[in-house]
Amino acid sequence: MADERTILVTNDDGITAPGIRSLIEAVSHLGRIVVVAPDSPQSGKGHAITIGVPLRLDRVDIFGDIEAWQCSGTPVDCVKLARDKILHRKPDICVSGINHGANHSINIIYSGTMSAAMEAAIEGIPSIGFSYLDYSFAADFTLPKQVAAEVTQKVLESDLPPGTLFNVNIPLLGSRDDFRGIKICRQANAKWVEEFDERRDPRGKKYFWLTGEFKNMDHGEDTDVWALENDYASLVPVQFDLTHYKLKERLEAEWKL
Amino acid sequence: MADERTILVTNDDGITAPGIRSLIEAVSHLGRIVVVAPDSPQSGKGHAITIGVPLRLDRVDIFGDIEAWQCSGTPVDCVKLARDKILHRKPDICVSGINHGANHSINIIYSGTMSAAMEAAIEGIPSIGFSYLDYSFAADFTLPKQVAAEVTQKVLESDLPPGTLFNVNIPLLGSRDDFRGIKICRQANAKWVEEFDERRDPRGKKYFWLTGEFKNMDHGEDTDVWALENDYASLVPVQFDLTHYKLKERLEAEWKL
Repeated sequence: MADERTILVTNDDGITAPGIRSLIEAVSHLGRIVVVAPDSPQSGKGHAITIGVPLRLDRVDIFGDIEAWQCSGTPVDCVKLARDKILHRKPDICVSGINHGANHSINIIYSGTMSAAMEAAIEGIPSIGFSYLDYSFAADFTLPKQVAAEVTQKVLESDLPPGTLFNVNIPLLGSRDDFRGIKICRQANAKWVEEFDERRDPRGKKYFWLTGEFKNMDHGEDTDVWALENDYASLVPVQFDLTHYKLKERLEAEWKL
Repeated sequence: MADERTILVTNDDGITAPGIRSLIEAVSHLGRIVVVAPDSPQSGKGHAITIGVPLRLDRVDIFGDIEAWQCSGTPVDCVKLARDKILHRKPDICVSGINHGANHSINIIYSGTMSAAMEAAIEGIPSIGFSYLDYSFAADFTLPKQVAAEVTQKVLESDLPPGTLFNVNIPLLGSRDDFRGIKICRQANAKWVEEFDERRDPRGKKYFWLTGEFKNMDHGEDTDVWALENDYASLVPVQFDLTHYKLKERLEAEWKL
């Protein structure tokens, strides 16, 4: 029954970000919500875990009746602590986001939003990361909420393999009427062309800010980048077996070690 | 010519760790070495990048004639800065490590060593991460150095696709004679069963240390974990297209969105 399900909600923008509140609102009719999220912004933290310092975990009361905890660690730490110290069992699903900004294509590698979802998937929990292509904290989350509700419900109702993980991005539309639906995609072959902003501090010593320009090298019409540029939400099924099987076969045939 | 090649060396244990010195010694006959590594230990940082604070980069003189830089950021930041601000072009190869401790199976996801190598591979640079199953800073690196030299030379001499990335782990042997060679493997299906060590600070407030037990759920004899347990070094070819193509096909057939 829907009201017996437990839904773990997390993110990487921090527990006070508007995106996580929108995600809670989007899925709260589907089960009991437990929120465990970072106490500060953790964008770009990838799959980092906290080893060298201990973690703090504090109950917070910012979502009405909903149980919520803030954690001093990374998004991945949040999922680990939620499983072991708060829920004491696996939730039925983990949803992460809604991220303020895109996590399509290669960005999945750097994204704390997706790493939190991947950590849950490694545990065998069906998991979804949601990201909205509007970076603004004042963004209108009407469409992202609708997509998050639809995909979460679909995953809960489907008989998917353990460890199923989806990367869902929601487009920034000119007009709400432009939305063309949710498209199942592959990860586009893209990367960041880095440029560092080089400055000098008041003592004359150099320092660098990471900036960069996104470069899509992929002209396919089955990619997440294409879908988003064409007013679809993109859904990429994600795996965490990183073995390159084709190259493995070639090496086995060609290399004498 | 070998002496015209540029080899970027990095790691996640920090520039003063014995493992990176061993790696430099292992590959310095294969080309010009440039070292760009974190100024402090960065284990478990995964694919984290530094967004919220600026980065520092300082020339250091700790490896004799070899050009070396320490960076205040993550292993991935080191690779980005090396490419853009030090080399101003792609190196011929990037080697990362030798890590003090294993990075086989699912550990690739959490590993700063492998994330540094992956960042270079995303740039199209052939890259290898090396990890030794001895955590001790006093470890004997004779065997890891021999494996690192052999694999690096083999990659330089082979005509591999752009973005080729290898995860190489070196076993901890009872005796040097036990070594059975390098085996091409797939990533074992394994995970960490987390347990947090719960303590109270002097003010009575709870805190948690991440600990955990490694659990291999994979009984295959073609995995990296099997190879290492059987006195082989493991070599896993790694990809960073995380699309789960099989699940994608199934969803396209079954889901109406």
